[in-house]
Amino acid sequence: MKVGIADTTFARVDMARAAISAIKKEVSVEIVRYTVPGIKDLPVAAKKLLEEKGCDIVMALGMPGAAEKDRVCAHEASSGLISAQLMTNKHIIEVFVHEDEASDERTLAWLAERRTAEHALNVVRLLYYPEKLTRMAGTGQRQGYEDAGPIDAGLGGHLGH
Amino acid sequence: MKVGIADTTFARVDMARAAISAIKKEVSVEIVRYTVPGIKDLPVAAKKLLEEKGCDIVMALGMPGAAEKDRVCAHEASSGLISAQLMTNKHIIEVFVHEDEASDERTLAWLAERRTAEHALNVVRLLYYPEKLTRMAGTGQRQGYEDAGPIDAGLGGHLGH
Amino acid sequence: MKVGIADTTFARVDMARAAISAIKKEVSVEIVRYTVPGIKDLPVAAKKLLEEKGCDIVMALGMPGAAEKDRVCAHEASSGLISAQLMTNKHIIEVFVHEDEASDERTLAWLAERRTAEHALNVVRLLYYPEKLTRMAGTGQRQGYEDAGPIDAGLGGHLGH
Amino acid sequence: MKVGIADTTFARVDMARAAISAIKKEVSVEIVRYTVPGIKDLPVAAKKLLEEKGCDIVMALGMPGAAEKDRVCAHEASSGLISAQLMTNKHIIEVFVHEDEASDERTLAWLAERRTAEHALNVVRLLYYPEKLTRMAGTGQRQGYEDAGPIDAGLGGHLGH
Amino acid sequence: MKVGIADTTFARVDMARAAISAIKKEVSVEIVRYTVPGIKDLPVAAKKLLEEKGCDIVMALGMPGAAEKDRVCAHEASSGLISAQLMTNKHIIEVFVHEDEASDERTLAWLAERRTAEHALNVVRLLYYPEKLTRMAGTGQRQGYEDAGPIDAGLGGHLGH
Repeated sequence: MKVGIADTTFARVDMARAAISAIKKEVSVEIVRYTVPGIKDLPVAAKKLLEEKGCDIVMALGMPGAAEKDRVCAHEASSGLISAQLMTNKHIIEVFVHEDEASDERTLAWLAERRTAEHALNVVRLLYYPEKLTRMAGTGQRQGYEDAGPIDAGLGGHLGH
Repeated sequence: MKVGIADTTFARVDMARAAISAIKKEVSVEIVRYTVPGIKDLPVAAKKLLEEKGCDIVMALGMPGAAEKDRVCAHEASSGLISAQLMTNKHIIEVFVHEDEASDERTLAWLAERRTAEHALNVVRLLYYPEKLTRMAGTGQRQGYEDAGPIDAGLGGHLGH
Repeated sequence: MKVGIADTTFARVDMARAAISAIKKEVSVEIVRYTVPGIKDLPVAAKKLLEEKGCDIVMALGMPGAAEKDRVCAHEASSGLISAQLMTNKHIIEVFVHEDEASDERTLAWLAERRTAEHALNVVRLLYYPEKLTRMAGTGQRQGYEDAGPIDAGLGGHLGH
Repeated sequence: MKVGIADTTFARVDMARAAISAIKKEVSVEIVRYTVPGIKDLPVAAKKLLEEKGCDIVMALGMPGAAEKDRVCAHEASSGLISAQLMTNKHIIEVFVHEDEASDERTLAWLAERRTAEHALNVVRLLYYPEKLTRMAGTGQRQGYEDAGPIDAGLGGHLGH
Repeated sequence: MKVGIADTTFARVDMARAAISAIKKEVSVEIVRYTVPGIKDLPVAAKKLLEEKGCDIVMALGMPGAAEKDRVCAHEASSGLISAQLMTNKHIIEVFVHEDEASDERTLAWLAERRTAEHALNVVRLLYYPEKLTRMAGTGQRQGYEDAGPIDAGLGGHLGH
């Protein structure tokens, strides 16, 4: 198995380091890293990792800015990442941390590292332990901030909507 | 016939359980389940179920959050699900329940289960009874909350628009 | 020649009936109907009609709701219908009637039937009489409400912009 | 060389006439015209002109309405035209004139004709004189209203940003 | 190695000159330039440079206007550039400078030249020195205005979120 890590020089945190460290704690697997300028360069970088470097899965790491233009960039990048997956039949786990998701830089850095680390676990599960993901299905997992948790319809189900 | 169920750990309700239960009540069919982290992972998961697991149809189950960012995610996921269908010539029935579609968590859970169960019937109809769908055409069917019902242009049609 | 009609159980008017009736008034042609749950299921339905059922053209009929979410659904469906056309080099005539295009249900039903019937004529023209469309080019044709009509730059062209 | 012209019955000006007249003034080239109902029908029409009629380039002419829904239609059509170009490696020059780009109908008609004629020159340049476009690079060319013109960073470049 | 430069007559600054000058300062490489009318023509121009002219990488240079319509154009062009990359497995470095990114024309021209020159360095790095990009990963690089710089989670990491 081989894991690709695509990251950017635009990001303000070395998310790839967090990803690599989290993966290596879990499994012994070859990792290929590919750094590009910005998030819009990630789709083809991820596809090249999958098709030219023989990766089985890729993490695409980025930190979009807070402006409206940046949100559009992130949307374009995300759409491209989905297209790249459909063209290869392989997963690309997108880890985007938006600058406006934290109130200060320290929290933003913390969030970027933690979300990356938690998604690294998802990568390991998709590759080696898919049944673990199924056991966690519908339980409101979040990456970064705390989980939302499961909800249920209560005893006797929905009474009179 | 084989039905694929793609669901997420992000969702707060075990929608796949509701789907499987509803399908099994109707027909005896093989079901393959595949759980991924979030809704943006669903398009490739569905495509893999169709192409690698031999499924004839897939249900893609997810619960997007209520924030603007989540709406964009849902849009990206939906677009990817449509692309996956066009690439395979097979149906992927999307069942998304948005967190802001219900006023409280219990109703949200109820809605997720009911919409999933009602769409499971659509899956069965598409596979085995397409003529039933044609009989229901234009009748304002809804999944989850109550049907909108059919309307018509009245006696004598439109008088003086 | 074979015409495909893809419609939905979500719509509140039997638009397919209006389409079939309008086509049959004009030409004798084989019609294949395929009903799906909602508008996001139309792109693959149309593609299957073109590729698996041998249709030469398809009408995709739907009635998106009035909420913001419904507008996004319609956008996703429309984009998918355009992709399906590009993948097949065949026309799919989209006939969408938005719930907020009419002030009351009776007018909405009238609008759905009339727009469908008028687009059915476009289907017939595309298949059999493309030169008729060219004669109508640039004349402000509308389907449903009245035509906008042609405009011109006036005698002597644009004087002092 | 063969030029395709795709236009619509929805437009309120015979833009194709303006295009054909402008091209014929410049070069002697075969022109194939294909009229469809609306702008969302243009992507496949353009692709058919390129692939089935042997055109080397296509002009896609349309006049989107002024409502929000029309803007979304134009976005879908434009995205489809870009996809069609990527699938064929040939240019499709989009000429869209939005109804709200002019204050009155006469100016709108004038604008539609002038923008079409100016883009027809671009088509001729792309086919026969690409070096002319390079000489015009970065000079703020506009089609319809007057050119924006070039700007430069001034003597000595940027002083103290 | 061969670098493609796709630019527009719409832009108000000769960005290609800035790109070519910056590349030539760094490496001796063949450059192919292709000028098109506007940014929506860039995706196919870039794809033709990659597939028909044998380029290994392309810079796509453009200056979208400041109006809402222009933002949509830029979004369509960007999406097309990402698709072109996924279809070719090669990088297209997009350099767009929006008219509203600077308060006056002189600064806008300065920004266009500087962003282009800085992205030209990224092109050289992607082609010849990918390890340099990895060393710059997560350091908040920006092209044009000054870099945002790296941030970190502080000593002891996140304490009490």
